[in-house]
Amino acid sequence: MQYYDLTEMTWPEVEEALTTVRMAIVPVGAHEQHGPHMNESCDAVLATEMAKRLAAVLHPQVVVTPTVNMGVSPHHLNFPGTISLRPETLLAVLRDMVTSLQRHGIDKVLFLNSHGGNQGTLGLACASFAQELGIECYYAKTTVAAKNALKEHIHSPLYGHSCEREVSEAYYLAPYLVRPERLVKGDIVDGGRWEGLRPGSPIQGFYRYEEMTRNGCIGDATKASYEIGEAIVEEALAGLAAAVRALLTEPAARPADRALAT
Amino acid sequence: MQYYDLTEMTWPEVEEALTTVRMAIVPVGAHEQHGPHMNESCDAVLATEMAKRLAAVLHPQVVVTPTVNMGVSPHHLNFPGTISLRPETLLAVLRDMVTSLQRHGIDKVLFLNSHGGNQGTLGLACASFAQELGIECYYAKTTVAAKNALKEHIHSPLYGHSCEREVSEAYYLAPYLVRPERLVKGDIVDGGRWEGLRPGSPIQGFYRYEEMTRNGCIGDATKASYEIGEAIVEEALAGLAAAVRALLTEPAARPADRALAT
Amino acid sequence: MQYYDLTEMTWPEVEEALTTVRMAIVPVGAHEQHGPHMNESCDAVLATEMAKRLAAVLHPQVVVTPTVNMGVSPHHLNFPGTISLRPETLLAVLRDMVTSLQRHGIDKVLFLNSHGGNQGTLGLACASFAQELGIECYYAKTTVAAKNALKEHIHSPLYGHSCEREVSEAYYLAPYLVRPERLVKGDIVDGGRWEGLRPGSPIQGFYRYEEMTRNGCIGDATKASYEIGEAIVEEALAGLAAAVRALLTEPAARPADRALAT
Amino acid sequence: MQYYDLTEMTWPEVEEALTTVRMAIVPVGAHEQHGPHMNESCDAVLATEMAKRLAAVLHPQVVVTPTVNMGVSPHHLNFPGTISLRPETLLAVLRDMVTSLQRHGIDKVLFLNSHGGNQGTLGLACASFAQELGIECYYAKTTVAAKNALKEHIHSPLYGHSCEREVSEAYYLAPYLVRPERLVKGDIVDGGRWEGLRPGSPIQGFYRYEEMTRNGCIGDATKASYEIGEAIVEEALAGLAAAVRALLTEPAARPADRALAT
Amino acid sequence: MQYYDLTEMTWPEVEEALTTVRMAIVPVGAHEQHGPHMNESCDAVLATEMAKRLAAVLHPQVVVTPTVNMGVSPHHLNFPGTISLRPETLLAVLRDMVTSLQRHGIDKVLFLNSHGGNQGTLGLACASFAQELGIECYYAKTTVAAKNALKEHIHSPLYGHSCEREVSEAYYLAPYLVRPERLVKGDIVDGGRWEGLRPGSPIQGFYRYEEMTRNGCIGDATKASYEIGEAIVEEALAGLAAAVRALLTEPAARPADRALAT
Amino acid sequence: MQYYDLTEMTWPEVEEALTTVRMAIVPVGAHEQHGPHMNESCDAVLATEMAKRLAAVLHPQVVVTPTVNMGVSPHHLNFPGTISLRPETLLAVLRDMVTSLQRHGIDKVLFLNSHGGNQGTLGLACASFAQELGIECYYAKTTVAAKNALKEHIHSPLYGHSCEREVSEAYYLAPYLVRPERLVKGDIVDGGRWEGLRPGSPIQGFYRYEEMTRNGCIGDATKASYEIGEAIVEEALAGLAAAVRALLTEPAARPADRALAT
Repeated sequence: MQYYDLTEMTWPEVEEALTTVRMAIVPVGAHEQHGPHMNESCDAVLATEMAKRLAAVLHPQVVVTPTVNMGVSPHHLNFPGTISLRPETLLAVLRDMVTSLQRHGIDKVLFLNSHGGNQGTLGLACASFAQELGIECYYAKTTVAAKNALKEHIHSPLYGHSCEREVSEAYYLAPYLVRPERLVKGDIVDGGRWEGLRPGSPIQGFYRYEEMTRNGCIGDATKASYEIGEAIVEEALAGLAAAVRALLTEPAARPADRALAT
Repeated sequence: MQYYDLTEMTWPEVEEALTTVRMAIVPVGAHEQHGPHMNESCDAVLATEMAKRLAAVLHPQVVVTPTVNMGVSPHHLNFPGTISLRPETLLAVLRDMVTSLQRHGIDKVLFLNSHGGNQGTLGLACASFAQELGIECYYAKTTVAAKNALKEHIHSPLYGHSCEREVSEAYYLAPYLVRPERLVKGDIVDGGRWEGLRPGSPIQGFYRYEEMTRNGCIGDATKASYEIGEAIVEEALAGLAAAVRALLTEPAARPADRALAT
Repeated sequence: MQYYDLTEMTWPEVEEALTTVRMAIVPVGAHEQHGPHMNESCDAVLATEMAKRLAAVLHPQVVVTPTVNMGVSPHHLNFPGTISLRPETLLAVLRDMVTSLQRHGIDKVLFLNSHGGNQGTLGLACASFAQELGIECYYAKTTVAAKNALKEHIHSPLYGHSCEREVSEAYYLAPYLVRPERLVKGDIVDGGRWEGLRPGSPIQGFYRYEEMTRNGCIGDATKASYEIGEAIVEEALAGLAAAVRALLTEPAARPADRALAT
Repeated sequence: MQYYDLTEMTWPEVEEALTTVRMAIVPVGAHEQHGPHMNESCDAVLATEMAKRLAAVLHPQVVVTPTVNMGVSPHHLNFPGTISLRPETLLAVLRDMVTSLQRHGIDKVLFLNSHGGNQGTLGLACASFAQELGIECYYAKTTVAAKNALKEHIHSPLYGHSCEREVSEAYYLAPYLVRPERLVKGDIVDGGRWEGLRPGSPIQGFYRYEEMTRNGCIGDATKASYEIGEAIVEEALAGLAAAVRALLTEPAARPADRALAT
Repeated sequence: MQYYDLTEMTWPEVEEALTTVRMAIVPVGAHEQHGPHMNESCDAVLATEMAKRLAAVLHPQVVVTPTVNMGVSPHHLNFPGTISLRPETLLAVLRDMVTSLQRHGIDKVLFLNSHGGNQGTLGLACASFAQELGIECYYAKTTVAAKNALKEHIHSPLYGHSCEREVSEAYYLAPYLVRPERLVKGDIVDGGRWEGLRPGSPIQGFYRYEEMTRNGCIGDATKASYEIGEAIVEEALAGLAAAVRALLTEPAARPADRALAT
Repeated sequence: MQYYDLTEMTWPEVEEALTTVRMAIVPVGAHEQHGPHMNESCDAVLATEMAKRLAAVLHPQVVVTPTVNMGVSPHHLNFPGTISLRPETLLAVLRDMVTSLQRHGIDKVLFLNSHGGNQGTLGLACASFAQELGIECYYAKTTVAAKNALKEHIHSPLYGHSCEREVSEAYYLAPYLVRPERLVKGDIVDGGRWEGLRPGSPIQGFYRYEEMTRNGCIGDATKASYEIGEAIVEEALAGLAAAVRALLTEPAARPADRALAT
């Protein structure tokens, strides 16, 4: 698997790579509890692994940057070990990364994110950086593009955290994240406030993860497998690669607006 | 229609109302172009009208606050007249409002929002305020709960801004916002970068509205009607009211976390 | 009454108006208690009404923006219903508005303010924006220019909040703000700390409004009338219009300084 | 002249003084051009001298702190040598000073200010610190209380900066600030934008000092004298002392509000 | 090698570990050019490896957190690939980490830092967090404690970046960071401004790395060896462990000061 | 002694001086306890005096600015009278000063600092301002260059605050700072946490001054003399002057980097 990753390169190698690189991929993860059967670094590792694979597919047009290995996880803070950044801190980190990348001539950036709690901040980041820094700025959930595989393999009504989807991805991408002997279903709290606040409800709001699940998982991790992970990851990579290629072949994308003011 | 609205009350009236009020509804709108057939204040007015009607349904348990009449609209700034707040500015306004409301003994707040561009910021606001201020903090798009009416009446593949849905809502809630003689379909830009960045795409990112539509509209406003507006608004109000009632009857909602730290 | 108001216009109408518009008028109000006989939205409404009338006089050279409907009111926070912004929040809102207006080619702005508590912040705003944004930035109390009418009609030694002046202005501009059946004089606290801190004293400082008046009013609102309001408002409008015209006819005003640095 | 000044004391001496001290006096000045006949440190020195004299009158109830020797002077920046702080910087300095003073048990502070350009910031500072830090916070222009002396001795229609008033004060308080052989009248620019923006005009706004005066002075410094300075300073000190004494004898001043929230 | 590392643990494992853990070790690195013979992730990797080894020595009293894998590196930004955080961004990241750790009951933190450019920020961080968060906060350069080994083995007059010391450490701790076939001496710029600004000079200041070295290295990496790395690392670990043990056995360390104010 | 000092000049004098001035010297001090035998203004006064003397040596190439008379002193706050700025406040003050100086055409600045607690902040300031403002920015401890004199005359193992070194400097530069009749040795706390955190220890961190010394001094002030002060100050001035001269004669120093980005 051949790809460019800044963490594994010397500066003359980066200089050489920059002659073909047109976009940076920034892996964005989290450090938070993942129930009794996954390491807390799960999101950081999965984002990194997905970024490398996507970079291999798109080689030599993209380069992977260092991973943002902590994210916005306040809803998990009552579980031991979780480290959470405030949204403004994550914004500051991303801004500094983008500014540094611009110094090296890179003006397209994709935040490849494995943690749902970061999505709101990433949306704001892309809008702000596009306007203020004149950069083309994108973000993507790592495996959301795998619509068919998810439909086929994931059946829990409530999933998305240390569930059969995430554990399957880990089996395929980084199996050391999983404690196979401890896999359990989510221990869901029935009738809680959270039920009225899930995506799709008329109202949304902040609730703590322990309001929803006593063991920190949802879905049913016991149904996870390497094969499901492979199906999800590979479909997602194909979808991401196609989307990035489309953006890289746009003839005249015009992300910056500072010159547009009347 | 009887309801509590801080802008129409004296302080002794507020003092009396606070004996029954358990939640504040903050209308959150925007000031941005809405094509050639709607006033730029559209979102601010619709949020205000929805808030009053919701307050009437839930009377005397809720009170409407002053409207946040500008929002996060950078993607519309190249159309004349748009005023946009940065996300951090909107956060500061909401924080000050919530802090003031807490002084009056209100510890539940619903941001009732009519503008999609505000949603990311509102999500961050609710998470931050819940943690830092110990308040129950919720947000809702004004008519997203009207799933049936939307499915039945709205058929444009791309809708959501100065389209048949929004114009219909305005016909029902505030018809002076509409220029009936100028109603037009969205003048969509085919094959642009935006097509790969819509909700549901593998990748998301910031693009300017003129990259997508030359006249600032999407959908087909010529299909709007008072009746469609009525169907959407009334279904949405019923959904919102039910959701709020559920939250107000929660026996032991525990929004704050400061006391939870181990 | 013909005038330009961004909240009542579509973007093609704004585009047309911008061919003659040379200055934006930003109404700046507050949301705060006004005793037992005025709505808490008083300042926001009066600023809006004054802005529209001033825009009519100066048509088509000026345009009214959305109203800043909350202001800096910490001294009123112990009265039910008051919502107060911190000065830095108000500054952020105004900065974003000015920046947006600049995008539309407007480089002169007048903050038309009805609330004394905002004056300090507006002064800082004008100085900062003039320097940093290269804009001509002005501010004015709505009716301070009515020196003759005030001298003739207002006789309370202590006035300026929900008094005969403000109620008279409301009778003329927006009578629905007033509860005529509840009009009362200010219930002043004699001998309090506030007496040594009024304008004109050797020392100034922060005190809460309830330290000065038990019912939240000063002056004597029972002496208010439509006729007094008319005299004040019309004299003030004439004074404001003359001042703005002078600024608009300045041959070579040079507000920005970035080019001046040696 | 006996007084407490933190800059001239050791910590055991401060400890002893704190047994009687009830208020801190913070001299607030500026570093800005004062025409061809005064040093640029004028405001910093005058504020310091006034603070010491006021402290002597009120001994042993007050203590002078280090001087804030630069202020908010953007309007003077085009004259060589001026150093200007942004308002937010001055606020930060004052906040840190007040917080430090609270550590030593002082909960009443007077900002004694000699520079008009600081007044807006000081007003915001007092309001913010009173609310957020629970401190009694006041501010005063150094000699504004000298109403009679000013009326009797100062006759220029436009005065207040390196004029007969300020030079007279310097003759009395710190004569080394003055170049007697270079005293000149202000070289006023007739018909400029500034004329419509002076205090008392319907509109106010930011203008640069060179728009108003070519040599950086206003008024007529040639009319200054030691005797005028003495009259102004002594009347002002008496007025300030009386005002401070009144505040110190208030039986139940209640500056903090955090406990007042309903 | 047994140690606690949050990135490799589940939350029930962390919960168990917290019964003995008394201090967290936060590895702090950088992402910056290291000449033609080391990966740009060098500092992040070395800090992580040192932290794990130190945690093994002090097991079970300490726990390693996720690594701060980018740091303050503006002086390297003109070399391709470097990513630099502003000091305020690094402070924000560290603050959020410490705040999260406090939630889990940890009130002693050591920032174990491998990058000189972070030291100033870490000093400020420790002072701020000790005061504001009431935490015992320490920082250390990873191998500065190895005084004897450094004296014995490192002879270049100018060393400290991709030199024989750092390459030796990498040979011992993470040999994949090194390109042995490309090892070169620093290509030093003679007579530059930097010579007067090194530690020990009367004056210090900011200069860019290319002002000092053309290839991004200093010292002589060709003299590096596994054995030198072993000597440095092991002596440093012993010194760090002794220092931490002393701090953990302090009978009554009193880091917080909020309760100390008179 | 002839030198340029902005606080003692009029603007025409500054204008004249700027024809030869190439660097500004900013004295940076502190306001903090100095034991029972020195005034709390010690650091501010010594920095000012050193700056004037250095300016005399380098006349007419440098100019002294107003003194930053308070600094970062949180470790002294439990001693009566200390005033401490947060590091971010000091940064803001310095940034505004540098920005103002740039307006006057000065693009080289030396922060001449007498207080160890400011050094970390000054390092960050120089790096930030060099990058963001394109200025050559330096800092120096006032007498650190006096290596020979310090070695010869100062023998306490622990010195640096109100010790024989600092009191000697004061005897020579500003004897009114000293209470000769109260000179005492530092009253050191044996065996405290501070012993493991001194410069040179493997670990560093924040501790309060009273953890180390009961009377606020270290070293032995009773050994101070005018002659020692003279030796230290004059050697330091010579070293500083030589270093500044080298920087001013650099042929093509290139402090700014904004033009360097690839």
